[in-house]
Amino acid sequence: MKKKATPIWSKSSEEQSAFEGIHEFTVGRDREFDLLLAPFDMEGTKAHTTMLERIGLLSREELSLVLEALDQMLERCREGRFSLDPNVEDVHSQIEYELIQSLGAVGEKIHTGRSRNDQVLTAIKLYLRSEIQQIAELVERLFVVLTSLAGKFREELMPGYTHYQIAMPSSVGLWLSSYAESLTDDLELLSAAQRIALKNPLGSGAGYGSSFPLDRRLTTDLLGFKSMHVNSIYAQKSRGKTERFLAVAMASIGSTIGGLSNDLCLYLGQNFGFFSFPDTITTGSSIMPHKKNPDVFELIRAKTSRLQSLPSELTLLSHNLATGYNRDMQLTKEILFPAIQELKSCLKMLIGVLPELKVEKGLLNDPKYEYLFSVEKINQLMQKGTTFRQAYQEVGKSIQNGCYTYEPSELHYSHVGSVGVLGLDLIGKDFYEVLEKIKE
Amino acid sequence: MKKKATPIWSKSSEEQSAFEGIHEFTVGRDREFDLLLAPFDMEGTKAHTTMLERIGLLSREELSLVLEALDQMLERCREGRFSLDPNVEDVHSQIEYELIQSLGAVGEKIHTGRSRNDQVLTAIKLYLRSEIQQIAELVERLFVVLTSLAGKFREELMPGYTHYQIAMPSSVGLWLSSYAESLTDDLELLSAAQRIALKNPLGSGAGYGSSFPLDRRLTTDLLGFKSMHVNSIYAQKSRGKTERFLAVAMASIGSTIGGLSNDLCLYLGQNFGFFSFPDTITTGSSIMPHKKNPDVFELIRAKTSRLQSLPSELTLLSHNLATGYNRDMQLTKEILFPAIQELKSCLKMLIGVLPELKVEKGLLNDPKYEYLFSVEKINQLMQKGTTFRQAYQEVGKSIQNGCYTYEPSELHYSHVGSVGVLGLDLIGKDFYEVLEKIKE
Amino acid sequence: MKKKATPIWSKSSEEQSAFEGIHEFTVGRDREFDLLLAPFDMEGTKAHTTMLERIGLLSREELSLVLEALDQMLERCREGRFSLDPNVEDVHSQIEYELIQSLGAVGEKIHTGRSRNDQVLTAIKLYLRSEIQQIAELVERLFVVLTSLAGKFREELMPGYTHYQIAMPSSVGLWLSSYAESLTDDLELLSAAQRIALKNPLGSGAGYGSSFPLDRRLTTDLLGFKSMHVNSIYAQKSRGKTERFLAVAMASIGSTIGGLSNDLCLYLGQNFGFFSFPDTITTGSSIMPHKKNPDVFELIRAKTSRLQSLPSELTLLSHNLATGYNRDMQLTKEILFPAIQELKSCLKMLIGVLPELKVEKGLLNDPKYEYLFSVEKINQLMQKGTTFRQAYQEVGKSIQNGCYTYEPSELHYSHVGSVGVLGLDLIGKDFYEVLEKIKE
Amino acid sequence: MKKKATPIWSKSSEEQSAFEGIHEFTVGRDREFDLLLAPFDMEGTKAHTTMLERIGLLSREELSLVLEALDQMLERCREGRFSLDPNVEDVHSQIEYELIQSLGAVGEKIHTGRSRNDQVLTAIKLYLRSEIQQIAELVERLFVVLTSLAGKFREELMPGYTHYQIAMPSSVGLWLSSYAESLTDDLELLSAAQRIALKNPLGSGAGYGSSFPLDRRLTTDLLGFKSMHVNSIYAQKSRGKTERFLAVAMASIGSTIGGLSNDLCLYLGQNFGFFSFPDTITTGSSIMPHKKNPDVFELIRAKTSRLQSLPSELTLLSHNLATGYNRDMQLTKEILFPAIQELKSCLKMLIGVLPELKVEKGLLNDPKYEYLFSVEKINQLMQKGTTFRQAYQEVGKSIQNGCYTYEPSELHYSHVGSVGVLGLDLIGKDFYEVLEKIKE
Repeated sequence: MKKKATPIWSKSSEEQSAFEGIHEFTVGRDREFDLLLAPFDMEGTKAHTTMLERIGLLSREELSLVLEALDQMLERCREGRFSLDPNVEDVHSQIEYELIQSLGAVGEKIHTGRSRNDQVLTAIKLYLRSEIQQIAELVERLFVVLTSLAGKFREELMPGYTHYQIAMPSSVGLWLSSYAESLTDDLELLSAAQRIALKNPLGSGAGYGSSFPLDRRLTTDLLGFKSMHVNSIYAQKSRGKTERFLAVAMASIGSTIGGLSNDLCLYLGQNFGFFSFPDTITTGSSIMPHKKNPDVFELIRAKTSRLQSLPSELTLLSHNLATGYNRDMQLTKEILFPAIQELKSCLKMLIGVLPELKVEKGLLNDPKYEYLFSVEKINQLMQKGTTFRQAYQEVGKSIQNGCYTYEPSELHYSHVGSVGVLGLDLIGKDFYEVLEKIKE
Repeated sequence: MKKKATPIWSKSSEEQSAFEGIHEFTVGRDREFDLLLAPFDMEGTKAHTTMLERIGLLSREELSLVLEALDQMLERCREGRFSLDPNVEDVHSQIEYELIQSLGAVGEKIHTGRSRNDQVLTAIKLYLRSEIQQIAELVERLFVVLTSLAGKFREELMPGYTHYQIAMPSSVGLWLSSYAESLTDDLELLSAAQRIALKNPLGSGAGYGSSFPLDRRLTTDLLGFKSMHVNSIYAQKSRGKTERFLAVAMASIGSTIGGLSNDLCLYLGQNFGFFSFPDTITTGSSIMPHKKNPDVFELIRAKTSRLQSLPSELTLLSHNLATGYNRDMQLTKEILFPAIQELKSCLKMLIGVLPELKVEKGLLNDPKYEYLFSVEKINQLMQKGTTFRQAYQEVGKSIQNGCYTYEPSELHYSHVGSVGVLGLDLIGKDFYEVLEKIKE
Repeated sequence: MKKKATPIWSKSSEEQSAFEGIHEFTVGRDREFDLLLAPFDMEGTKAHTTMLERIGLLSREELSLVLEALDQMLERCREGRFSLDPNVEDVHSQIEYELIQSLGAVGEKIHTGRSRNDQVLTAIKLYLRSEIQQIAELVERLFVVLTSLAGKFREELMPGYTHYQIAMPSSVGLWLSSYAESLTDDLELLSAAQRIALKNPLGSGAGYGSSFPLDRRLTTDLLGFKSMHVNSIYAQKSRGKTERFLAVAMASIGSTIGGLSNDLCLYLGQNFGFFSFPDTITTGSSIMPHKKNPDVFELIRAKTSRLQSLPSELTLLSHNLATGYNRDMQLTKEILFPAIQELKSCLKMLIGVLPELKVEKGLLNDPKYEYLFSVEKINQLMQKGTTFRQAYQEVGKSIQNGCYTYEPSELHYSHVGSVGVLGLDLIGKDFYEVLEKIKE
Repeated sequence: MKKKATPIWSKSSEEQSAFEGIHEFTVGRDREFDLLLAPFDMEGTKAHTTMLERIGLLSREELSLVLEALDQMLERCREGRFSLDPNVEDVHSQIEYELIQSLGAVGEKIHTGRSRNDQVLTAIKLYLRSEIQQIAELVERLFVVLTSLAGKFREELMPGYTHYQIAMPSSVGLWLSSYAESLTDDLELLSAAQRIALKNPLGSGAGYGSSFPLDRRLTTDLLGFKSMHVNSIYAQKSRGKTERFLAVAMASIGSTIGGLSNDLCLYLGQNFGFFSFPDTITTGSSIMPHKKNPDVFELIRAKTSRLQSLPSELTLLSHNLATGYNRDMQLTKEILFPAIQELKSCLKMLIGVLPELKVEKGLLNDPKYEYLFSVEKINQLMQKGTTFRQAYQEVGKSIQNGCYTYEPSELHYSHVGSVGVLGLDLIGKDFYEVLEKIKE
């Protein structure tokens, strides 16, 4: 429930000036995020007024006027010609103000049966729905990049580590496709976020409904929501919670691509030296001419690190507040909205630069990687009849005595998900199954 | 990858003693949580050995012996007669040790094609699957309690607040069912957690698969997993991530019941005085004989507050660690497992005490609640033709002038989700739709 | 270590265009925060070049030219006439670029014995030192407001609560001065933050020092640092850690004023009704004309809630990264700098509006507050010789039987820190003792 | 304010049974942590009763009896013979119960002028004071180990990294002493934690003081507190806040030793191979006989990762709760107390194992480390008169053309904090200056 742009009771000039400082403090960065909501608020208003006509609170003619005016505003939005007057508090006031300016009394009627609370929440849900789609599309594009590269590098062996120790043979393809598959599970959370975003809060008023005979089913259908937040109080509680669900999904995607970037930073270093990128992608140093710093990946790691604290930040905002809307919820916008853009920029950057990945040839030629095959050797002994414990001891002793040698046996990994059988088809099948739940 | 109970190379007594301190440090509280995993590790081992027989690495007779021994151990588990020897590191070693003790060479073969890593992960997934079921059942029972109470108190009006200010008429039924509906969305996250818990990691070895021709599809079916973590590296990465998904769902359920408990603490206070509970549920004070402290609800609030930091705690554990298993993951158990029990105890407590809720009669008789009906009054004026802005000003002035009076007009809320129409059937339908995804 | 504004090796136009996208991604919001650092970087450069002259790497004449040019730039900063060229990456490049433009070869020499890393870190430390002073001053002003109001309202009794239950008599003065005293402990953390901010990192280069015979003691003195980060590696590690220390202090101050604001939101509600504020400070509702929403306090609560996650956000950024500077640290600026401004705006807002606090008269006249005096009654019985247990039972029974009556006995609290003896002098003494550690 | 062990009003057996479930839920794990508080509660009680005698509420004889009984209990504590009866809720009830058992009416008098709230808080402060001392001592011992090793390995060069890229020459001594110096700043936070722990809350009752003429200055002196929480309300607010201050300090120490452990995990891997530890300290693998896993360091990293979320967890507990004690605060014990023991065990482990560190000889002989000296080369050119930019370009081109060669020039780092001049004396001086603030 916010202060309107045109205060109902006039104030003395002194009061006005005190009010200004408070006004600035309370509005904060809200106006910059509000512009993102503009077209969604117009859509929400179209649905609300269409419903008002259906239940007899607006005439057919009045509705036509309103819809036409809103369509013109939407057009201006698309063309980048919609903006907030400096003295108007928020986008919702701006839209209402313009409607009253152009339509007079009819413009005033559109507030019937609606509160600022359910109005804002509706616009946010529609906006998040749109952003979820965009995130899903970028995740899909990254998935394609990762699996393509995995296929391309399926034969390139690299060391596999546990405890940061050289452990067993792996491959660049196996490593890359592990991140592709990780995205599949991340999408499960994005799907959960979408389900809550697709619930209609319109008609819940300030959290206690309205005494007008609103047809909430109609607005649900008109706006393309899947279902509705039935209970008016809960509809309001979904403010902050919807955002948190999305934040959780974003943190999960962020954790996957942050992990990939962190690996890259390590592997691009001279002590691993598995990969390289063209000079256009790496960065030099102001004092060390030999450096090729992986700044892009460091910043993806850092930006996705920030995302990890996003859910907590949103949680704190509403933690232990009693039932009922509180102005605190305004900050969900400045917390979540820029983070969405950051995540998208990280995804785009990876989609752009990953195809430039170059793999060093003959990664396993270095003698230190001989031990990678110790398990292989144990297994060979076992296939000749030795028990595991005996084979383990035998190989272990040869390592201790320094007489362990590396026999470059061909690897025969036959089960799905191992070095030899990446199972990209299965990984793809699972991925698209979840993606389809999101892509309506 | 852990130290085995029976170290392969012998140590001098001095080395042994240094090792003991380290051993105690590294084992930590692991043994106490491991007992929870015992039956699930036995099930996992049954599936693994069945598969070994199928691919020819175990004879039919050997398999019979192993399965019989494991079934006997499972029986001992159920009867509470399975325990860890003091000098055995973990439950997995204990099981292997007992099999070797009773079956000799056959027992040693069961480690073929399996690493401690995928073995532990499999047991954890099976354990979490079981706990998710139990949480879902308790959530269902709480949902039933809440909707029953909502129905019982649907006529009891209470004040609705926004900004902690008296706002509009609400009802006890509306308030209670808002929490019921909240559980529906929480279950979406529990469902996502279940989907990742239901993916088979067995066969991924230490994260790089095995050169034995394992049949991972078979163990997937035998253990009742829905699908598998295809990529061996990703299977290992799911350690920590599976736990985080569940933690996120638990935090969400916790947020719902913590919010309910927080409301109760407030409303049980004398300044609201909406409700009361029998003396058996509230607590006295050591110095103030009139106090009826809502300790139960304070502690539910506190315990579910702790749950809010659970996802961050798990995130920190693996944040910025490079690909490959790290021992850090051991701590997921001591972080998550006790929290699961805490959440369940909170749910049980609410299921037990909420039915004792008593609602004070005539909550709205206090004159301070007159203003609740100001919106109603505006709406009445509007239905007589006044525009909203005019009606708002008129009612506003009457309040300023002190001549606003409360006309106890009958409330006519006709739309779904409002005071008059709780929509419990719709809420129930949505809830069970999500619940069914979880209850296999 | 960042890319310079004027790259040393030329790139083809195609490379250049790919570089642009990456450039935009890596620069991010850095330029907007960099302007805040401008004067501090100039001061740092003055000290560095003064030192270069002292160790013979710059002539006296060269130094004069550099200092003069920097003083002119500082003048332009003060007048708001210093800005970043669109094609210059950051403020440090801008300053260096301008010096080279105006001084030629001399300008190029100032980079001697300094890396971008220790240069940036020095500017940040100087900036944070300045902000810490400003925060401390605002905290002091708030302390004065709170203790003045506490003195003014020392006689106004109000209910004291435990468990959200009416407990014992309190006073508005006691309640207000509890927040004043809270600020004292918060300052302890601000003082710790200041101590780490006052350590000189200049001369640590990129984290491994320099082979030039730098005189780090001299720059320490010139820049007014208290001591230095001795170890070059640790000096670099202090990036992120310095910010975290300040974040922790800000979260603590935020917790105090957020708690005060939360209390106000509750007490301004009609169910408590202890206080009121003029209409200029509270906000109306778009649909409920009787509402006086405490938006200012809700937003202070929300903005300080955000501050609670600040330390975690900074922690995540460097968590589990190996020794040595990483580009991730760039984000500390966009995380911390806006938060500092938010905290200051919250403090200013409270300093401005709190003096408008009006206390309702006769707060304890409501019969529900009778029980506040039950402990008092027990104490009276005890002073007549009854044991505590007997007195407790006697008063308890009278409450149960409904025959407890309120005798408005004059309260006689004689010990310091109780309703009767606020101890504002002691509180003030402790506060200024800590404040003086900071203000020096 | 807790339920007493001997409820004042009797309950029917049915009520009793319902109460039992709630009793178990509300007590939780409290009893196990309470034993840690026992001796501190006894000390607090000694001081409180001594004060009661001074203000005439206890006779000299009564006081003698009480002090004697408490001294006997303290003796039993020291000998491990003090325990909680199964039906007693907490340690405070146990102590009171035993006093009443042995002293009768006199025992009942000790509750005069004290609430369970200030009693518990006093015991917690005294306990934390003791733990802070122990942590400080362990930090000191670790500091000594680190600086000794730094001195021992001051000549051993190792690569210095930025962006995970080989950057400039460093040394094992420089690297080790960076962590020593880091502890100095961590102690600043521990000192702040100690200052708040050293404030006396006794006499604040349940948060609103007492009408008895308590002498709070006396108990402050008797208990060795430095000052007092003056305001009774704030004294109660310090519950949770005191814990948070300590948690912040612990997280900071944890971050330092976690960072060290993380470095060790990396450097112990074969791709760096800088160090090794005896077999007693590293751990083998169940399937890879060549592995020497750094489990100890992984677990220190993991356990200190957990500590990073400790402050948030405590923050959530009291976030947005209104003024006045709430039962939620009980959980501070189960959150903080085990974490203290974990931190101490990590410190002890490092103190024990770090001296076993072995450094590989000739770390920089590998050709990939040649580039470490590129900055050195630039500096040499500059000392011959070339400008930095020219020298940078010249060396850069020789690297590009592959004709850069490594001249094993002797390094001449002469400034403090660089490879050549560790400045351990300065680091030590700063460390002990902070430590002395704590050790008093």
